[in-house]
Amino acid sequence: MQELTDKGKKARIASKQLQKALSSEKDAALRIAAVNLVKETPAILKANEKDLESANSSGLKGAIIDRLTLTAERVEGIAEGLTQLIKLEDPVGEVISMKKRPNGLMIGQKRVPIGVIGMIYEARPNVTVDVFGLCIKTGNVSILRGGKEAFHSNNMLVSILRNSLKEAGLPEDAVQLVQDTTRESAVALMKLNEYLDLLIPRGGAGLIRTVVMNSTVPVIETGVGNCHVYVDEWADPGKAVDIVFNSKTHRPGVCNAAESLLIHSEVAAQLLPPICDKLKTKNVEIRGDDRVIKLIKDAVPASEKDWGEEYLDYIISVRVVNSIDEAIEHIGKYGSMHSECIVTENYTNAQKFLDEVDAAAVYVNASTRFTDGFEFGFGAEIGISTQKLHARGPMGLKELTTTKYVIYGDGQIRN
Amino acid sequence: MQELTDKGKKARIASKQLQKALSSEKDAALRIAAVNLVKETPAILKANEKDLESANSSGLKGAIIDRLTLTAERVEGIAEGLTQLIKLEDPVGEVISMKKRPNGLMIGQKRVPIGVIGMIYEARPNVTVDVFGLCIKTGNVSILRGGKEAFHSNNMLVSILRNSLKEAGLPEDAVQLVQDTTRESAVALMKLNEYLDLLIPRGGAGLIRTVVMNSTVPVIETGVGNCHVYVDEWADPGKAVDIVFNSKTHRPGVCNAAESLLIHSEVAAQLLPPICDKLKTKNVEIRGDDRVIKLIKDAVPASEKDWGEEYLDYIISVRVVNSIDEAIEHIGKYGSMHSECIVTENYTNAQKFLDEVDAAAVYVNASTRFTDGFEFGFGAEIGISTQKLHARGPMGLKELTTTKYVIYGDGQIRN
Repeated sequence: MQELTDKGKKARIASKQLQKALSSEKDAALRIAAVNLVKETPAILKANEKDLESANSSGLKGAIIDRLTLTAERVEGIAEGLTQLIKLEDPVGEVISMKKRPNGLMIGQKRVPIGVIGMIYEARPNVTVDVFGLCIKTGNVSILRGGKEAFHSNNMLVSILRNSLKEAGLPEDAVQLVQDTTRESAVALMKLNEYLDLLIPRGGAGLIRTVVMNSTVPVIETGVGNCHVYVDEWADPGKAVDIVFNSKTHRPGVCNAAESLLIHSEVAAQLLPPICDKLKTKNVEIRGDDRVIKLIKDAVPASEKDWGEEYLDYIISVRVVNSIDEAIEHIGKYGSMHSECIVTENYTNAQKFLDEVDAAAVYVNASTRFTDGFEFGFGAEIGISTQKLHARGPMGLKELTTTKYVIYGDGQIRN
Repeated sequence: MQELTDKGKKARIASKQLQKALSSEKDAALRIAAVNLVKETPAILKANEKDLESANSSGLKGAIIDRLTLTAERVEGIAEGLTQLIKLEDPVGEVISMKKRPNGLMIGQKRVPIGVIGMIYEARPNVTVDVFGLCIKTGNVSILRGGKEAFHSNNMLVSILRNSLKEAGLPEDAVQLVQDTTRESAVALMKLNEYLDLLIPRGGAGLIRTVVMNSTVPVIETGVGNCHVYVDEWADPGKAVDIVFNSKTHRPGVCNAAESLLIHSEVAAQLLPPICDKLKTKNVEIRGDDRVIKLIKDAVPASEKDWGEEYLDYIISVRVVNSIDEAIEHIGKYGSMHSECIVTENYTNAQKFLDEVDAAAVYVNASTRFTDGFEFGFGAEIGISTQKLHARGPMGLKELTTTKYVIYGDGQIRN
């Protein structure tokens, strides 16, 4: 696809320039962009209105409309996000290790930008600015392929961002928005190996699956979370109630929300009623196995499909297990290796769960909702990786870098 | 493909068991395997003979035959490789960082095995044992798809390795050899996302390219090296001669050998003759640009194609450049981001080259031949990554692990 090849070439040229930029220059660009976004709020809202009109006339639903909508306050929040990045340390240039070999060679490992990063996302225009900011901070160039729903908003935002780069003396091609929003452009981006070093999909499970299964560019899989809370035989009742309630209902529509509750049979009769009472204060639908149905009136029977479901809604599947091993096995079978929690006061069970559950984040006695770059103290987040290569769990600035070995010699040759 | 689905399922089960294995148990398995390989040398050589007969009768060439051939000495060397691994520290279980958040959550990042690793390789039976060893040491399960040329050797080796695992009380399915050696089985392995966490191709450029372009399983690209030595205006003449000679001729058939020499125009007349004289002691063919042809008799004209070529042979392309910038630009255009070297006594040029050349390993005044897990002090190597994600440069034991976040709470919920 001509548009992508052209953008790829420009991105490579911009990447070489951006890799040399000082942290102070990159931070200046972020500051200018933040100011310009706020200044251009009327133009942004006008562009956003066009998108909202199209969305309404094509009958899109509430949640998508909400994600798509910008307000003066939201624009300010987006600009504030860029300002926050300025305060964070630039990971580029850090020498992680430097060792002297027996032959006198000094071998160091240094953080450098990845290069050119492609992003495929859906209707949220804030992602456009977030990704721009994270990439500029880490010396990476981005090629953004947003959804057609946000076409006008994205174009206005990217035009402001490109002007800001120019104003800061950095290459404006360090951020480019793909104009073709058909399926074809997404597919072409997945095959753009010559110009892309990495492709990150951000959106629903369907989008992510499509990218993983079709991309020949290296991908980082983000986001799908079928997270469990396991209430152990030795759970503290108060913690169990609070953690299940918070994990499920604090923000049900996000990937680190709990979708499933496992509870040990020894304590099910005692703890399920108070847990479910608390969940019912938020009208959470309980889908349970046979033993749950007996204990909780209003609970509806769970089907096999429920165990694998990421509801993203006020629904929870509940199963009674006879042992911690059964809980770990269930999580291994149905979980998405995102965030998993055990509630227990038993030392050995806590260690066993931490060791044996294979997930990006494994918790003892804390809500799964903490799996997040900000909560982990990274100050930023480009997504939550649910794969095992390169990055696992919340990805901050460091995860947007790679390394190179720098070797200082004095004429060494190999014998 | 049924064979791969079956092997994938068995691998997942074995992986769960192996992840729990202690370092001492894994080391015991390596020790037993090393002993058994030496003990079974006659059986191994007999199987190898079958492969060699087929290879000879199908008219395979010298280099492949050499790679395929096992001798008692080589088997001993392969077994010794396993013994070496025992001495290395097991990276699994290491907690890389552990920090307390303001809310009291203790968040740690811990090294864990990747899981199930697929390997596609060609005629070298030693790769079978190497990969087995590296994977067992790091708690990973391997599914090996070797070339049909080594079919009998590989089967004998894997059968010994599986028996050794059993003897050590570890799951024998921790290593499995794909019996179908057709192209179809390789393609099926590239799509085995459900059971594979990582696929590593090891072999020629064609194999690697095919895997990168067709695999939906995450891949680590290894090996292709079009490496340059740039002799700067400020090069020490003695170091220049030695480093070019060593980089090119120490072992021309491997990926970290230099394929191209760039030399600054200010010193070309003075330094090219002694460099080429030294190269000619090993009968290296010089393919040069116009200015090289004028300085060096016997040099043949280089074509555009030469600049991008990985000869893996006693051939070198030579170009005169007018500046360090021209050298860096040439490397950016034709290099494969493997290993690049500058020979210079000039501080600023050394730093500039280290900063601006985008490659896995960048050298000042040392042979490119040092890019190697053993030379870097890792004690082992599964390959040299030329991509930017997960691992870049020589990959040792650490690069065969991923991490998980382990979070110790005390009832924390998110506000």
